[in-house]
Amino acid sequence: MKIHIENLKFETIIGILDFERETPQEVVIDLTVTYPFDDEKFIDYAIMVDLIKKDLTQQKYGLIEHALIGLKKKLLEHYPEIKKFSIKIAKPNIMPSCKVALSQTWKLK
Amino acid sequence: MKIHIENLKFETIIGILDFERETPQEVVIDLTVTYPFDDEKFIDYAIMVDLIKKDLTQQKYGLIEHALIGLKKKLLEHYPEIKKFSIKIAKPNIMPSCKVALSQTWKLK
Amino acid sequence: MKIHIENLKFETIIGILDFERETPQEVVIDLTVTYPFDDEKFIDYAIMVDLIKKDLTQQKYGLIEHALIGLKKKLLEHYPEIKKFSIKIAKPNIMPSCKVALSQTWKLK
Amino acid sequence: MKIHIENLKFETIIGILDFERETPQEVVIDLTVTYPFDDEKFIDYAIMVDLIKKDLTQQKYGLIEHALIGLKKKLLEHYPEIKKFSIKIAKPNIMPSCKVALSQTWKLK
Repeated sequence: MKIHIENLKFETIIGILDFERETPQEVVIDLTVTYPFDDEKFIDYAIMVDLIKKDLTQQKYGLIEHALIGLKKKLLEHYPEIKKFSIKIAKPNIMPSCKVALSQTWKLK
Repeated sequence: MKIHIENLKFETIIGILDFERETPQEVVIDLTVTYPFDDEKFIDYAIMVDLIKKDLTQQKYGLIEHALIGLKKKLLEHYPEIKKFSIKIAKPNIMPSCKVALSQTWKLK
Repeated sequence: MKIHIENLKFETIIGILDFERETPQEVVIDLTVTYPFDDEKFIDYAIMVDLIKKDLTQQKYGLIEHALIGLKKKLLEHYPEIKKFSIKIAKPNIMPSCKVALSQTWKLK
Repeated sequence: MKIHIENLKFETIIGILDFERETPQEVVIDLTVTYPFDDEKFIDYAIMVDLIKKDLTQQKYGLIEHALIGLKKKLLEHYPEIKKFSIKIAKPNIMPSCKVALSQTWKLK
């Protein structure tokens, strides 16, 4: 089974520029998580959404690269059963002429 | 040939929370079906759309995971010629800050 | 090089229902064409768009499946250099609750 | 890590038709760049966006095919660490009934 959390929007401190360390900005997160579903054990998407929001707002990452690596670590601690994992973090308002994002996919054994 | 049924929206009982068992909510379905077309036998997309709606509204699934598995079973009963099959079910209104969905792809011999 | 022709919209007779044989309906075409570019010879996207429109409006296909096969034949006659080819034809207004489309990808040697 | 620069819009001279050589038109660029991130060295997306804009507006390419090849050359000069590279350039207003674009993906060792 693959869980999709799409267009998750909230404000947080992220970035390495001076104003980015002071003023929260909007981030938009898309992630997919593949995991082996069985009736006894399923992943509650609401709890996963909360984990993501809490991690990003508490960690106040500089580089988006570090945010991706940090989120992956956090989610795998809570969900060691995850088989495949993709996260994309966009800063939709940081550039006036485009949307920039970073993403990473991890295949876990 | 691949059939695409995109953005199929209707209301149904789905979910495991108390209010989800009582109040219908919107679901959005995307599916693709790959099948060997020949002139004598083609899949009528209108009948397939009806099957999907009927199955979900009658079964009132709890977990989206079970809805995916149930839909797959129902569609393969009617269309044993299907070669590949992907379904995604979204509950667009269940989380205020994002869209959540689950999907599964099946390759059949 | 890959050419993308996206969201090509026009009206044509297509479909097997009685009213579809009489009243033109909107179709939306997406296609990608991979071809070996060299300076002496490139594919003019404007001519390709015209070919697609002309073929669909002249042929008045019944099944979308036949429209896909017909378009592929027509385009390969004009562009034998094509290496890979995907077409998707949607009838956005035929079903009230969703968008239906059919697609096919061909890899050519 | 994969950088996404999406929906980068600006005006430039591009195209081989007479009026395209005289009047700037809107282009929309999407690109993804995969590169090996390490803490000491990361790619600054803002600088990359500037490079792309500067190259296209200065070079005034004729064929989009040449613009793709030129951009790739320019970006690899600045970022020899890039592993995989996809660019798509659309001219959204050149055809009235659709959006046309060209794209290319390069895998580098």
